[in-house]
Amino acid sequence: MSDFLDLCRRRQSCRDYADRPVEREKLINCIEAARMAPSGCNSQPWSFVVVDNPQLVPEVAKSTQHFGLNEYFEKASAFIVVLEEHAVLIKRIRAFIDSQYFARHDLGCATMSICLAAEAQGLGTCIIGVFDRERLCELLGLPREQRFACVIAVGYPANDTVRPKVRKSMEEIAKFI
Amino acid sequence: MSDFLDLCRRRQSCRDYADRPVEREKLINCIEAARMAPSGCNSQPWSFVVVDNPQLVPEVAKSTQHFGLNEYFEKASAFIVVLEEHAVLIKRIRAFIDSQYFARHDLGCATMSICLAAEAQGLGTCIIGVFDRERLCELLGLPREQRFACVIAVGYPANDTVRPKVRKSMEEIAKFI
Repeated sequence: MSDFLDLCRRRQSCRDYADRPVEREKLINCIEAARMAPSGCNSQPWSFVVVDNPQLVPEVAKSTQHFGLNEYFEKASAFIVVLEEHAVLIKRIRAFIDSQYFARHDLGCATMSICLAAEAQGLGTCIIGVFDRERLCELLGLPREQRFACVIAVGYPANDTVRPKVRKSMEEIAKFI
Repeated sequence: MSDFLDLCRRRQSCRDYADRPVEREKLINCIEAARMAPSGCNSQPWSFVVVDNPQLVPEVAKSTQHFGLNEYFEKASAFIVVLEEHAVLIKRIRAFIDSQYFARHDLGCATMSICLAAEAQGLGTCIIGVFDRERLCELLGLPREQRFACVIAVGYPANDTVRPKVRKSMEEIAKFI
């Protein structure tokens, strides 16, 4: 267990990457971890575009900087674009909630698996929530109506410092009854 | 890395639990893993109610069965109720998206961390998305307007069989470009 908690503690938003390509196999492992994630009625409302082509990577980086944000990701070696797909819940559940309702939660599960799988392989990641989706659709050949969950920057961290995590205390967030 | 992928592969929705209490320390470890999860602008839009009181656990189980669903969870030893809290994104991000928009994705990250932390400690979990929220508010002393992400059943699995996972193939869900 301490191994897993260590992994959670080491994982951090990495904003400075080494100039070193990421092995394709490691990226595949990240997607494999996401593929195993749970989802409402096993609907698996996700797909992934993994970009590691050195010509395309800077273009994806730029699409995250469109709004004057995310200047950090110039040096990421790869991006994993997490897409929201159509979810179909079983009928007994659909009676209570809309099929797409759980999708964002499920996509969060898949994203967490990717970031932890990356960390377990010595890779840094950062989840990016704001980007130019029209430009991304263009770059990745996706339909304009495509829904996105997030874009994950991936690369070897430029240094191995684990910053102290700023988090609410256990007492603030948890009640045991 | 193979350790982490193994963990992802072993984690499954557990619907049959042994008659054995879960140590409080293991539940705390699960929340600790969630506490470390990433969130939009580090907003940490979550809180957790961990129920392991043997009088209260069956009542929470019943609240998940209200609609004739989830008959499996009679034997769970504990429940972790994952609550959605108010998120505040930084101003530059708020200019583009509503503060609560990422919350469900963030809560998925936290939920995944809980389920993997449980698995790493030999515990089974199952994420429950439909439940009687009014009854849960009553049982847990929560305000009626409380938002919920999910309820996670926790307990020692009745057996250690890892069922084959039914998942879309890597080819179906991932494109490498």
